[in-house]
Amino acid sequence: MFELLKTDPASKARLGRLTTAHGVVDTPVFMPVGTQGSVKALDLRELNEAGTSIILGNTYHLNLRPGLEIITAGGGLHRFINWDKPILTDSGGFQVFSLAKIRKVKPHGVEFRSHLDGSLLFLGPKESMEIQRILGSDIAMTFDECPPHDAPAKEQRHAVERTIRWARECREQPRAPGQLVFGICQGGVNPALREECAKAIVELGFDGYAIGGVSVGEPEPEMMKAVELAEPFLPANQPRYAMGLGTPAQLVELVARGVDMFDCVLPTRIARNGTAMTRKGAVSIKAGFNKADFGPIEEGCDCFACRHHTRAYLRHLLNVNEILGLRMLSVHNSHMILKVMADIRTHLAAGTFAEFRREFIAHYVPSKKVMLARVAAAAANS
Amino acid sequence: MFELLKTDPASKARLGRLTTAHGVVDTPVFMPVGTQGSVKALDLRELNEAGTSIILGNTYHLNLRPGLEIITAGGGLHRFINWDKPILTDSGGFQVFSLAKIRKVKPHGVEFRSHLDGSLLFLGPKESMEIQRILGSDIAMTFDECPPHDAPAKEQRHAVERTIRWARECREQPRAPGQLVFGICQGGVNPALREECAKAIVELGFDGYAIGGVSVGEPEPEMMKAVELAEPFLPANQPRYAMGLGTPAQLVELVARGVDMFDCVLPTRIARNGTAMTRKGAVSIKAGFNKADFGPIEEGCDCFACRHHTRAYLRHLLNVNEILGLRMLSVHNSHMILKVMADIRTHLAAGTFAEFRREFIAHYVPSKKVMLARVAAAAANS
Repeated sequence: MFELLKTDPASKARLGRLTTAHGVVDTPVFMPVGTQGSVKALDLRELNEAGTSIILGNTYHLNLRPGLEIITAGGGLHRFINWDKPILTDSGGFQVFSLAKIRKVKPHGVEFRSHLDGSLLFLGPKESMEIQRILGSDIAMTFDECPPHDAPAKEQRHAVERTIRWARECREQPRAPGQLVFGICQGGVNPALREECAKAIVELGFDGYAIGGVSVGEPEPEMMKAVELAEPFLPANQPRYAMGLGTPAQLVELVARGVDMFDCVLPTRIARNGTAMTRKGAVSIKAGFNKADFGPIEEGCDCFACRHHTRAYLRHLLNVNEILGLRMLSVHNSHMILKVMADIRTHLAAGTFAEFRREFIAHYVPSKKVMLARVAAAAANS
Repeated sequence: MFELLKTDPASKARLGRLTTAHGVVDTPVFMPVGTQGSVKALDLRELNEAGTSIILGNTYHLNLRPGLEIITAGGGLHRFINWDKPILTDSGGFQVFSLAKIRKVKPHGVEFRSHLDGSLLFLGPKESMEIQRILGSDIAMTFDECPPHDAPAKEQRHAVERTIRWARECREQPRAPGQLVFGICQGGVNPALREECAKAIVELGFDGYAIGGVSVGEPEPEMMKAVELAEPFLPANQPRYAMGLGTPAQLVELVARGVDMFDCVLPTRIARNGTAMTRKGAVSIKAGFNKADFGPIEEGCDCFACRHHTRAYLRHLLNVNEILGLRMLSVHNSHMILKVMADIRTHLAAGTFAEFRREFIAHYVPSKKVMLARVAAAAANS
């Protein structure tokens, strides 16, 4: 199912290949987020042209709208959205804890009110796995509790306990044919909790392991620390997924820390605010300095936006609220982050990852604004 | 410049070919509207795939944003928006009278306050032609006065007088290399005024003639009447353009009344409200009856949306406000209306237009809602 092809001698970076019911995913991989069955502003063709090999769907959102009845009638999630490559579904745990305002945590899940119409609903390991089975995703995630990064120690401990108990329940549920299930580790930045949780989840035995409790508003050093605390306890021959991350530079650094899979709303979210991702850092295309810049968003980029349009034109479109503006930035940003991942894989294969990493980080200027957007995105969730 | 290839024996319909500085346009033609330098929600590729041969730009809007300095620095409108086929620019007359709230009509144009920042501006025949020259459109329109359909007789008369005087002034202005200029006839549904205006404009001598004063809130019979009143006075060997029209069935009927060129925001505007155009009439894709309809928007349509997605999926996207929903409907509607025009040309060439017209009208159920949307679109302009 997962083949570890190569390990970087100078870091923990790994080159791998994950086989799913809908095809093969080369890792390290970035998974564009299609929360409600659509990667925001992009169509199938643009996703394919960007080199997308797997996308995300969201249990919480898809269960509310359009609902399982419609998706089942449509032949499952792949057919409903007409995406024939792999899909990973998030378990909905994150959304229950971040979106549903009124909730009551019970032994076997969470009672909450829909953020849409206030109706009373219940989501737990059993329900989440059942929804994911019906959606027919290639990779299902266990239902976890994801506390905010500044939750008190006691809350972190309870979250870890519930996460382990719920993972065990998820383990027992029926799956869709060929469906893989990944376990999620919590524990914040507490070394003992991270170790305990990671060990317990690995002990249960899943097809892959995710590091959760990141992208929950924490500063970058804490995020890196959380990953570093969990990673040593995850088996080398299985895929590791850091949830909800991150900026291009963070992905390079997280690959170096042994992570294989990523998802983030950042590329399409900041696109809609007029911000482009480049290898030198984030750039506001809306900004005045692009008024008469007739070059592309990023020199050397071969995405549709960079091949066809200038910064000056895109700035104009963004300024007058033309949908094409945010579309083109969504195309570029998705293309850019997927190309960085492709470059990472090429360099891992060639044995030149250390050099690539050094150069990438040297040229990349982290943007405070984007870092904050990432944190805000986490708060607003997908 | 304009070649009249064939005339339908059973109606006034004409098959023609218009040659411009940026290429040939087969008529009858529908021109998608790119008011601010972008056909709403569509990219270049989608426009080309739909069979677009010419698009519109708008003098009033483009002059305000991004402004002529930027467009000039970008090499003119074609290069700025990267559209290498023909562009027709509206003169801005319609917008000055519909958008700019505070205005003072003067002998040589209109003093008005920008609808964006309230700054005092002046637009008249001289200014409009100068802007269109700088934009470098293939077809420039004269600066006219376009009164509402229910304007009193006196106002209609004044509008006709000013429209003729301003057309004469436009006639004298310098043009971009190879730029054609079309004169606009006003006159509402007053036969004498329509005749007087059409004759006077034709007497001045332009490369083509537009019927203005339609799509200004009038009911369909008045719109048809306005066209019928003006058409007999327009020379057969030059193109005729009915401004701001219309629904698919209206286009078929207007072609039969001797019109060669059309533009309308309807296809993309109703798309953004979740309404699809079909040969049976408009269909609300957002409506509940599409909840579990796993067929395409329209059977037999080969647009990207119909080839890849079901009504049920598109309804879901529209319901949850995913941009892909309005994108796909914009693709379909533009494709649909351009295909109707292509069919019209095919049938004119084959001598079977009368039959096509009869069948098209027999199957098409006009939608009150869409008719009202067309009127509302005219009121909101763009």
